Amino acid sequence: MYNPVEIILKKRNGAELSREELKFFIEAFIDKKIPEYQMSSLLMAIFFQSMTPEEVQILTEVYINSGKQISFPQTMNTVDKHSTGGVGDKISLMLSPIVVACGGKIPMISGRGLGHTGGTLDKLEAIPGFRTDYSEAEFKKIIEKIGFSIISQSQELVPADKVIYALRDVSGTVESLPLITASIMSKKIAEGAQNLVIDLKVGTGAFIKNMEQAKKLGFLLKQTGEKLGQQVSIIFSNMNSPLGENIGNALEIIETIDYLKGKNLPDIHELTRKLAVEMLILAKTFTNRNDAEKKVEEVIADGSALKIFRDFIEAQGGNPACIDDYSLFATSKFSVPIISPKTGWVESINSQSIGYALIDVGAGRMTLDSKLNYGTGAKLHLKIGDKVESGSSMGTLFCDNKEIGIKVAERISSAYQIVNILVEKEKLILDKM
Amino acid sequence: MYNPVEIILKKRNGAELSREELKFFIEAFIDKKIPEYQMSSLLMAIFFQSMTPEEVQILTEVYINSGKQISFPQTMNTVDKHSTGGVGDKISLMLSPIVVACGGKIPMISGRGLGHTGGTLDKLEAIPGFRTDYSEAEFKKIIEKIGFSIISQSQELVPADKVIYALRDVSGTVESLPLITASIMSKKIAEGAQNLVIDLKVGTGAFIKNMEQAKKLGFLLKQTGEKLGQQVSIIFSNMNSPLGENIGNALEIIETIDYLKGKNLPDIHELTRKLAVEMLILAKTFTNRNDAEKKVEEVIADGSALKIFRDFIEAQGGNPACIDDYSLFATSKFSVPIISPKTGWVESINSQSIGYALIDVGAGRMTLDSKLNYGTGAKLHLKIGDKVESGSSMGTLFCDNKEIGIKVAERISSAYQIVNILVEKEKLILDKM
Repeated sequence: MYNPVEIILKKRNGAELSREELKFFIEAFIDKKIPEYQMSSLLMAIFFQSMTPEEVQILTEVYINSGKQISFPQTMNTVDKHSTGGVGDKISLMLSPIVVACGGKIPMISGRGLGHTGGTLDKLEAIPGFRTDYSEAEFKKIIEKIGFSIISQSQELVPADKVIYALRDVSGTVESLPLITASIMSKKIAEGAQNLVIDLKVGTGAFIKNMEQAKKLGFLLKQTGEKLGQQVSIIFSNMNSPLGENIGNALEIIETIDYLKGKNLPDIHELTRKLAVEMLILAKTFTNRNDAEKKVEEVIADGSALKIFRDFIEAQGGNPACIDDYSLFATSKFSVPIISPKTGWVESINSQSIGYALIDVGAGRMTLDSKLNYGTGAKLHLKIGDKVESGSSMGTLFCDNKEIGIKVAERISSAYQIVNILVEKEKLILDKM
Repeated sequence: MYNPVEIILKKRNGAELSREELKFFIEAFIDKKIPEYQMSSLLMAIFFQSMTPEEVQILTEVYINSGKQISFPQTMNTVDKHSTGGVGDKISLMLSPIVVACGGKIPMISGRGLGHTGGTLDKLEAIPGFRTDYSEAEFKKIIEKIGFSIISQSQELVPADKVIYALRDVSGTVESLPLITASIMSKKIAEGAQNLVIDLKVGTGAFIKNMEQAKKLGFLLKQTGEKLGQQVSIIFSNMNSPLGENIGNALEIIETIDYLKGKNLPDIHELTRKLAVEMLILAKTFTNRNDAEKKVEEVIADGSALKIFRDFIEAQGGNPACIDDYSLFATSKFSVPIISPKTGWVESINSQSIGYALIDVGAGRMTLDSKLNYGTGAKLHLKIGDKVESGSSMGTLFCDNKEIGIKVAERISSAYQIVNILVEKEKLILDKM
């Protein structure tokens, strides 16, 4: 039996916690024997003193062991992708049917949006009738039938992360690399993914702002997964410009369908293809990158990825007719044009401030209780390095309250730094680990 | 209206909090609008990022304004003494009647023991019938009649410190200089002391282990008090050896009476006289240190300090007959001799470990709910630099359970580091600020 205060003091003073200490503290917290104020105090101490890779691995194991674990036969070579979150990041939606069309199997437990970034589950729920609250047995059945399934985290899966994440969110302890690692890896291991590709976002629209931090997190994620028997590959990608053109729940589903129908979206395509190939290679579905890449292009061009997306929608209770009839999605009452105040080149985009501004029209959430408005959002086509003319369109805002919408449009417009000298376009894929 | 998480993040990221932010956070916490887990997380962030002197002053003011403030006429020149806590530190008990006999007026709000250090209120309550729970009006009446009163902190006085201190104790955030400063100074200002002498303990038996930390704390205490209209003087004193010979509640009252009757206790006398003179000068009762010192010696020698102590006991409901009849105090069932294992000189004493060991015989508390045993404790006469012979007495342990007592006696014995080379005696008074 340990004294919780002594464990807090030990971490606060910079020492390494033992397996027994971490296990005791987390388990006693879940059993409500350690109060939230001691947990938040330990979390803040971890924020400052960090954790050794061994502590992170142990914490991840304790998280996993706090609930059930889903497993798939080794021969299935399940593979999943995780994104650390960015503005307009709907890549999971197009990536999954593409990888499945190429022969992959994806068990994906996903999350909801909070703050400036959206969540895959919220986007999917913009599809009329779509459900994400399936049991383990149903999850497995959908994967068997379709090749992938995307569901929400049940109470049974990694409950430790669920309660601790909620506490981190309200105690100022989200941005801790060890805590982020345990949170991501515990879920991705417990869901049964044998292989994992992480899209680690770096830039103004991501919570990781520079490569140094990104490399540290990447190292922790990779090492923790591999120590716990999962193959992990990290792609570092640029989040200085929002991804694609649409931001908002229904808008992003529509963009996904457009893309799977063949619409040319250069950044979406580059990143999706890169991640898809990485997943197929990691899961040994392909041994040659060129073959994998060719196959990816093929399943988009011949419509087989789109067909799988349609089957997936149907399998999870959604109305597949929405693929051909976008009027089935929620729409907004008003559209407000976003006009460029000057002529020049886009030097930087504060994507985070765009994400926060869109909360005001209901496209995102400030707290987990906030209600979403699926039809609102924005279409924004400018990327860093693009040229824009004074008075020309930077995009369109979709809202249900015009007064609020006009203010949000102004905030979005001012998130773009426009300069009168040529700005080079930025690389989307930054590095690999 | 502020967002509590944003305030936590601001401090966590090293910025200075504004008066409005600190006021909002503390007041909302007291109103139970901010939960304990956000307060403990902010406290841990303060532990790591510290506070500017301005923030400490504001925090102290917010603490004071959370409750009532007692005030005395300016002409009274009230003076109090605060000790940061040490093992065997019963100086307030002898110091108060001495200063009063010399013409001072002392409004003292005191605390209970926790961990390795005892509390003045606990010691006083070892006197049969003694009460410390007086109202402000009764407190003032006793001071008017006797010259001083020692009572406990009511719910009305600095409630912010009361609830936040309780939370710090269980969240690993006690050892923060800004938080310590606000806690001490808010109480000492709210109680109505116009002048304050702080006995800042440094050494193995204190929570401040070195002079560098001590100076930092001393500076914060002095500056905060003076900015808020209180004259503050700091005496830095050595806490490497326990103070006096007796440790334990009734035992320390008996030692106080012995001292006021004229018993020779060199360290007690040196420190008491130093603090008394400082208080009398600060409160302008004396303008000349030599005169003050002479008067201090006089009021001990002529029994007038003892008479005031007797009147004080009677005024606060205690039985003054205990001054002449020590059998009125609680005693313990057993005494266990503490024997030196070797011959040599005392090089160091782990007073903190002695304090903790005595909790096991009931002389101190591990948590605020623990029950005290007033009759237990130890008599320990050795100081650093003293010579001791193998097999000779190092002191005596007093307990009600012999088995536990023997173990505690062994732990106490092993707290003394005895070496076979001459060790110099240490200075008791280290510095002044």
